[in-house]
Amino acid sequence: MAPLYLRTTMSQIVDVTTIIEAIQPELSGGKFASVVDRINPASPAQTADILERLPAAQQPVLFRLLPKDRASAVFDILSPKQQSGLIQGLRNREVSEIFAGLDPDDRALLLDELPASLATRLLTGLTGAQRRLTTDLLGYPKGSIGRRMSPQVVSTRATYTAADTLSRIQKRLGDAETIYTIPVVDNARRVVGIISLRQLLAADSHAVIADIMSKAEVASAYDSAEDAARICIELRLLALPIVDRECRLLGILTVDDAGRIIEHEDSVDSARQGGMEPLGRPYLSTPVLQLVRSRIVWLLVLAVGATLTVQVLSVFEATLEQVTVLALFVPLLIGTGGNTGNQAATTVTRAIALGDVHTSDLLRVLLRECAAGFTLGTLLGLIGALMTGAIFGAPIGLTIGLTLLAVCTVAASIGGIMPLIAKRLNVDPAVFSNPFITTFVDATGLIVYFLIAKAVLGI
Amino acid sequence: MAPLYLRTTMSQIVDVTTIIEAIQPELSGGKFASVVDRINPASPAQTADILERLPAAQQPVLFRLLPKDRASAVFDILSPKQQSGLIQGLRNREVSEIFAGLDPDDRALLLDELPASLATRLLTGLTGAQRRLTTDLLGYPKGSIGRRMSPQVVSTRATYTAADTLSRIQKRLGDAETIYTIPVVDNARRVVGIISLRQLLAADSHAVIADIMSKAEVASAYDSAEDAARICIELRLLALPIVDRECRLLGILTVDDAGRIIEHEDSVDSARQGGMEPLGRPYLSTPVLQLVRSRIVWLLVLAVGATLTVQVLSVFEATLEQVTVLALFVPLLIGTGGNTGNQAATTVTRAIALGDVHTSDLLRVLLRECAAGFTLGTLLGLIGALMTGAIFGAPIGLTIGLTLLAVCTVAASIGGIMPLIAKRLNVDPAVFSNPFITTFVDATGLIVYFLIAKAVLGI
Repeated sequence: MAPLYLRTTMSQIVDVTTIIEAIQPELSGGKFASVVDRINPASPAQTADILERLPAAQQPVLFRLLPKDRASAVFDILSPKQQSGLIQGLRNREVSEIFAGLDPDDRALLLDELPASLATRLLTGLTGAQRRLTTDLLGYPKGSIGRRMSPQVVSTRATYTAADTLSRIQKRLGDAETIYTIPVVDNARRVVGIISLRQLLAADSHAVIADIMSKAEVASAYDSAEDAARICIELRLLALPIVDRECRLLGILTVDDAGRIIEHEDSVDSARQGGMEPLGRPYLSTPVLQLVRSRIVWLLVLAVGATLTVQVLSVFEATLEQVTVLALFVPLLIGTGGNTGNQAATTVTRAIALGDVHTSDLLRVLLRECAAGFTLGTLLGLIGALMTGAIFGAPIGLTIGLTLLAVCTVAASIGGIMPLIAKRLNVDPAVFSNPFITTFVDATGLIVYFLIAKAVLGI
Repeated sequence: MAPLYLRTTMSQIVDVTTIIEAIQPELSGGKFASVVDRINPASPAQTADILERLPAAQQPVLFRLLPKDRASAVFDILSPKQQSGLIQGLRNREVSEIFAGLDPDDRALLLDELPASLATRLLTGLTGAQRRLTTDLLGYPKGSIGRRMSPQVVSTRATYTAADTLSRIQKRLGDAETIYTIPVVDNARRVVGIISLRQLLAADSHAVIADIMSKAEVASAYDSAEDAARICIELRLLALPIVDRECRLLGILTVDDAGRIIEHEDSVDSARQGGMEPLGRPYLSTPVLQLVRSRIVWLLVLAVGATLTVQVLSVFEATLEQVTVLALFVPLLIGTGGNTGNQAATTVTRAIALGDVHTSDLLRVLLRECAAGFTLGTLLGLIGALMTGAIFGAPIGLTIGLTLLAVCTVAASIGGIMPLIAKRLNVDPAVFSNPFITTFVDATGLIVYFLIAKAVLGI
């Protein structure tokens, strides 16, 4: 009986960590037989985990030690960035074999990550039909679902019977991306419905497809991969047919690929929300210098943006010298403004990603965020005014209270509409999101603060 | 022939927006026949979109106008929070009918959102078998996959043939959660392998399951729902068997449910990363006061935390009065520290969510982030020292440069390990993440700044 791999979180941590620690010296010492023994009981998922956590130089060494079928299962689990890194440490013949064994959509994804010369060489190594399947996908724009769909789709006709369709499926068991969701097409290959294998098995074998099929939701090959993936997940579809502008069937997006697309997009959004470029590979196998590279550009941009606050403060330097106590509240005020702006930006960025908000909703969003910011500002302003007033006197308390009210209102409004403006300018909303808004809100917040202070304190 | 709904992003925006604007006055004016006409051509997905964007009071009115099968398709697409809101506007009899029509796992999820009295009444309205299926799920802890799995699973035995298994599947077409992935169990119901419907169809009908099945990856019912869902997606499984501590089959997690779990968890992480509680419903249908409620607690906590900066600054008030120019750089320095800390925290929080980093990696993470922070600090510090030195003189330049170096190193280190500490304390890493770290880094950054300034400037 096949051994079982209980992948509870605890057991996985223990196993994988122990194996990694044991095999690292063995890999460098050339004790390959012992490595093979240790790796043998691991499932493909665990093997991929182990591989990912090894230093880059050891990854091809371990990969080469795997039996052929396990190697290709492990390769499938890796992200395109990792696949690309791994491939560059393998021999030409090994690479060509792995490449030919991939699905056309995975192949297209990997090609995007490879140096052009290697990509060309690999493409020429394919058979004509395989090459055509892959280059067709590469014809669609980056980020579109056309690049991520599988062209290997089984379809049926509305006029066929259930039995006809089942025998069509039977012939495509080996190569079709999915046999569980079958698009129904007309003479011109236009999608007119969809039928599941479950419906087919439940139907009478003479039943005509037109009578038992369901309405189809489809996506255009030019739609963004993220939008198509979210539709697939939210509508709980096992697969979504992908069509051209005339609604002719081109390929299919399966829900497991949709899940991977969303996981990737959410990683990108999370990185951008934190003011970074995404890593595209597991944290522990990313070299420190690459961590630095993913962060330095945004840090520099933000630091340059922050010199604005130095300039604003130097304009009010005389006021500061007169009433030094004003300086004490600067971090609190701009911090609160930044937090309020971030909250609004994060909410709206996520709502855009989920398709809940479109660029045409700009005015509605502005009004909602302005109202939310005003309410938050009133609450915080009252508390702030009372607390500061009690310690530093009423004029300072009034200044702080009014500033909090103004800053929260402005920050929420700006934070709310910035992602929509970014989206309209075809920039990733998450890029414009939090860190950029913080810088902007910091500068305006300081101006508002000192203007209110001058008015209230009469200086 | 069934009409087709081309769900490209553009067409969807136009349709849905137009319909919403048209039906809102009609719903309030009681012109229901006209509403039905407008809603009729929309697919369930579009109808759900329209419903979500209506004011809460109009949602039950529209829902009641839908034909029965469309109503249940639309209900399935809504999130549990929205379902709960909708249900509270419907009549008892309508609610009982919808509730009985749900899958056991969706029912368990909805019950969590409902007031206890309504939940009890709905449970009592079910048949005995249906009630048992649901209450079994409710026995598992919140957030565990045991609550989210489907108990309606078709299994087979290693000793059965392919034909036996196919006929078992045929009998469960109506109620099984999935018929495409079949766990293989032994006499004690322990999972010993897995077989896909595709493998079954490709096999000889007399083939014994033990010879054609694959190794199974499984998850324990007590594992977190997020971990199980990510395993399902990352290993490209169509379904993941869920087992008890003795590895006996309890239920199954399908990839479409896994996708929804991940989308939800990523929404929660995104909200927490931005310093908020998640909304759990579409942005535009969330009342403004609820936006305020999701944000005010964290804003207050952060503002109270920020009073620490006021205290730190008041300790150094004498220094500030002596050298007012030091105040100019406060926002720049703490902003850069906050950004560096956020970058580290965001990276590590995401790596934890993806299972790339475990709490046992604390030391590795600390060393990596310390190195990354030091490198970033050296780069920024050099640039900062040169620029500030040129304008404000060498001593101020040196102060700024050294402070940036120190602050970046500390911020990245703290930002990197905080999510791991949170995870070990069983707190959501994203809660501890950015806003909390900003506050902490602000205070320590200011102390470092003034200590360096006093040493360099000799005051």
